[in-house]
This record gives sequence, structure tokens and C-alpha cells, in this order.
Amino acid sequence: MIKIGVDAMGGDFAPKETVEGVNIAIKNNKDINIVLYGNEDEIKQYLLPNERISIIHTTEYVSMGEKDPISVVRNNKTASIILAMNDLKNNKIDAVVSSGPTQVLVVCGYLIVKRVSFMRRIALAPIIPSLNSPAKIVLDTGGNLSLDPSDLVDFAIYAQTLVRKMLNITNPKCALLNIGTEEGKGREVDKEAYKLLKACDKIDFIGNIESKDILTTEADIILQDGWSNNIAIKAIEGTAKALGNELKKEFKSSLGGMIGYLFARRNMKRFKDKFNTSKVGGATILGLNGIVVKSHGSSNREAFSNAIIQASNLVKTGLLKEVEKELQ
Amino acid sequence: MIKIGVDAMGGDFAPKETVEGVNIAIKNNKDINIVLYGNEDEIKQYLLPNERISIIHTTEYVSMGEKDPISVVRNNKTASIILAMNDLKNNKIDAVVSSGPTQVLVVCGYLIVKRVSFMRRIALAPIIPSLNSPAKIVLDTGGNLSLDPSDLVDFAIYAQTLVRKMLNITNPKCALLNIGTEEGKGREVDKEAYKLLKACDKIDFIGNIESKDILTTEADIILQDGWSNNIAIKAIEGTAKALGNELKKEFKSSLGGMIGYLFARRNMKRFKDKFNTSKVGGATILGLNGIVVKSHGSSNREAFSNAIIQASNLVKTGLLKEVEKELQ
Repeated sequence: MIKIGVDAMGGDFAPKETVEGVNIAIKNNKDINIVLYGNEDEIKQYLLPNERISIIHTTEYVSMGEKDPISVVRNNKTASIILAMNDLKNNKIDAVVSSGPTQVLVVCGYLIVKRVSFMRRIALAPIIPSLNSPAKIVLDTGGNLSLDPSDLVDFAIYAQTLVRKMLNITNPKCALLNIGTEEGKGREVDKEAYKLLKACDKIDFIGNIESKDILTTEADIILQDGWSNNIAIKAIEGTAKALGNELKKEFKSSLGGMIGYLFARRNMKRFKDKFNTSKVGGATILGLNGIVVKSHGSSNREAFSNAIIQASNLVKTGLLKEVEKELQ
Repeated sequence: MIKIGVDAMGGDFAPKETVEGVNIAIKNNKDINIVLYGNEDEIKQYLLPNERISIIHTTEYVSMGEKDPISVVRNNKTASIILAMNDLKNNKIDAVVSSGPTQVLVVCGYLIVKRVSFMRRIALAPIIPSLNSPAKIVLDTGGNLSLDPSDLVDFAIYAQTLVRKMLNITNPKCALLNIGTEEGKGREVDKEAYKLLKACDKIDFIGNIESKDILTTEADIILQDGWSNNIAIKAIEGTAKALGNELKKEFKSSLGGMIGYLFARRNMKRFKDKFNTSKVGGATILGLNGIVVKSHGSSNREAFSNAIIQASNLVKTGLLKEVEKELQ
């Protein structure tokens, strides 16, 4: 039986959507136990009783607007996410799932769960929409504003194993995000990373890609530092959202638009779903002595339930052991 | 009379669309002369004879795929763009407009036209679509993979004058592209840039913005190094294009979709036009001893004509003199 720790209090719609997500996950997955960390009274408002669910009660939690993650982690010993991370460290649970603030989770990773010995850095690897495959992952999108080229090689090897287990892609391909596709493009660190990635026979490296090709590249894994990926991913998110809003406005702006929408509404629904990753899962935090999955801050119950299942699958399939083998 | 030099041979659809763009610009603007640089025979296939147009004949030109811009500029003394840049340097013309490769234009700027004494760096400032204003500019998107914070201050002051003259925005606002909105976010260089921009009383600095807000921010000028802006802008372009393609596919995929499109086609046209900047103009290259406007490589005649008019306006309104005054 796999035991998943859930930070009930993290995320914009906690604890309602996290607990409802737990209800869905536990119903559909007979081989998991769930430990909920958070305010018992609030949790019980939404929880469907189940003998495979237990609650660790605490009234403290980390709010989404925290600006200094290190002091948050050091000074909130009884916050829900900290209790969960400590239980992961002490092997009382097999994984942690949270919709809490990314930087707090990354710092919990470094300070509580700790890095695995075979990785120099921790990376955040969210799943992003893909127009030519079920999904892809981008890493790092976490706290590494810059990276050594050799870190990207570690991340590539780790991410390949992750993608195999999580997205069922047998031979995942890696690409380096750059400002041009030719070898020799970018900063010195990118030129060096290109060489190392190309030279590593454990990596199926297809070369540089530009940010305009992220949604359509054949690569399953997109590598770059947290600064650059953050800019790329948020630009994609923002553009998709802005275009969606403009499209909605246009449909509503005239009778023709409204009638058109009525005829095409199924198509529009499918169009919208293509850019929805809540069905796929959350962001995996790579490089820790344990499985930590970060669900989007605005996750609904479906997205949160899928993040729980993702964490359970990564435990079940022995991700960490396999990555250790690959990296040694 | 203002004299604009046009690189007839630059761009994906040269010389046809560049020359057709010249035909439009010369017809609608009685106060400009145009000098076309390129293959006279090819140019004449498309040119409507006009006494205000002259041709400097050359059979050489720089192709779009050039990988080493510095050696291109050094070794192609008679290429169309090099002849134009030399004439700009020697004050035979007042401005250069080209759809040729960006890096070649930037290198021509550094090596031929030369920097103005009051700027340490050259920047490329394209116009991008905006959903809450006529347009905005983003700089640098050129060759500066990294920048000193003080360079960004120079760029901000220059860009404010540019935006006033080019987009008729009286009090332009500047923002710094970052990975979070709070002060203190980003790399060391970003924290320092934030402080300098905030402290400069010549700049209306509204703070950090994230890439997801580029299309909707109230800022008219978005500042960052060429690496980061390149990633942001190409991600926006790529997403808009990919979404447009998916939308088209959905409309075509069923009878309901097709009928819906017929009803909503005017709305869809307007939707598409919101992300079309060809009406506004090209990218200005800041920091040179002369006006250089780079039109998009895939410019059609309309976009190219607007880039010519943009260059002419910048000469007419005395951009360089005014920026010099501001920066001293």
C-alpha cells in the first residue's frame, strides 16, 4: 500500500478542492492510503469518510503570498506542508502532493527532504500542453536562475526516466531552449550545454529549439535554467489566456458571433481542452530523497486528484531507484 | 525632402514585396525620396516609375540564412545592405529600412554606422501587439545576451522618446520583464536594474512585469536583455500562431464548426487583426548615428511601406537630437 501525504491547506482553493481531489483519488485507486495535513474541522466539511484516509491536524499553514520561503520553512514547524515534508523525510509517507507556493516546496526540498547524493541541484518539472503529443515537460522552472551545463545533463537523464514512467513515452527526446536552432547559438553556457548534451550517449538530444516551437516541437523534454523557462512558459500561458479572452469577447460582440459560437461550441470546447493540462498531472520536483508533486496553485479537484495519482505512480514504478542507476 | 535608403534585396519576399512597399510609401508621402539598393533588373519588374525614386545597382546581397554576421559585413562590401549603411554613414541618405537578417543589421550598425557617443550599447526595439493600447515596444531583442543595469536605463530613456514620436503616446510607461512582480525578484542584475530604473526621475517606471502580462500590461515599453526578451516574444508569437492554426482546424473539422465560422467570420477577422503588427511598423535599432528600421523578415508590402513611413517620421521629428538632449 502506497501512502501519499497531501497538504490540504495549499493552493488558491484549499481545502475544498484539495479534499475533493482526495475523495476522487481514493475512490478510483484501491492501492493508496492518504494522509491529509491541515485543519481537521475544515477538512471534514468536504471529506467523504474512508478508512484509507487519515488526518494530521494543524491550524497553521503557509499562505500563497509568502515572500521569504527560507524563513517560512525555518519558522513554521507546524505548518501543514512542513509536517508533510518531515513525514516524507522520516519515511512515514511515500510522497507529498501540494498546491502550495512553488518556492516554499523547493526550499522544503533542500532543507527538509534533502537532495539525493547523485544530483547537484533540484529542479521543478511541470507538464505543459503539447499540440503533437499527449504532453511534455519543461525543466527547470524552479529556483535555479542559472545552471551549470553539467546540471542540465543530470536533469535530462532524470527527466527521461520521469517521462517514461509518467507519460508512457518509451524513447523520450530532449531539446535545449535557445534563441536560435543552430549549434553555437546563445550564451557561453548554452554552447557548452549543447556540447555536453550531444556527447552524452544516455540522452536522445535533438538540439536547440526556439520558444516559438515549444508547443509543437517533437521533443518531450525541454531543458533550460529556471529564469529562461519561467519566461517562456508564462509567456505561453499568458498568450493562450489573453487570446481565449479576446475570442470570447468577439463571440459575444455581435449576433453573428453568438450564432457562430452556438454552431461551433463543441469545436471551441475541444480547442480549449487542448491547452488544459489538469488532466495530466502536476509538476514533479526532481532531485529529492522522495517524491514531491506540486499541483498548480489554482488546481481544481480533478487536477489535484491527478497529481495524487501521478505521485502514486512514480512511487509504484520505483522512479528514484531507476534514476539513481542511470546517473551513476 | 527626406531621403530613405531601402535594402530592396532583404527579406523572405524580396525584392517583390519591398519594391511594392516602396510604391505604396512614395505614393502616399510627398515629402520623401527613396534610394533602392539592389539588382536593378529585378527591382524594375515591380517598380512603378517615380522621379523621387533612384536605384543603386548591385548584384550582391546578404541571404537570410547567414550564420556569421561579422564576416558577412566585412566581406561583402557591395552587398545591397552594406551599400545602404555606408550611404547612411556618409549622410547621403537619412535612414535605412531593411527586412534583412537582424544580426547583420546590428553588426552593420556597430561596424559601419557606429554607435552614438551617448549610448554604450545598440538595442533592437520591435513593436509588438498590445490588447489594451495601439502597440508597445520591447527592447533589447537584438544581440545583447546580457546587459548592465545602467544600459537598461539608457534604453528606457531612449525608448520613451521613441515611443512618444512613433506611437504618439505622450507619457510612456516602462516596465522590467522579470519572473515575479515584487521588487527583489530575479537575478542580481535585475534587482540592480529595478533600483536604477526606479531612482531615475526621467523614467516613468511601473516596476516588474511577468511574461504572462506582456500583451496586457499598461507599460508601453518592456525592458530586458536580448536573451530574455527573445524567449518571451518568440513564445508569444509561437503560441498565437499555434492557437490560430488549431482554431482554423477546429472550424474546418465539422459542419457545425464551418457554419459557426461563417456566422462569426467578421469577428474572427477582427480577432486575427488584433495580433497583426504589420500596420504599425518595424523594429527600430537604437543607439546608432542614424535611423535604421528593421522590417520583419516576412514583411508584406503593407508592413514594409509602414516601416518606410516610420523611418521617415523618426527623421522628421528629430529623434536622435532629442534623445541626445535627454541622455546628456
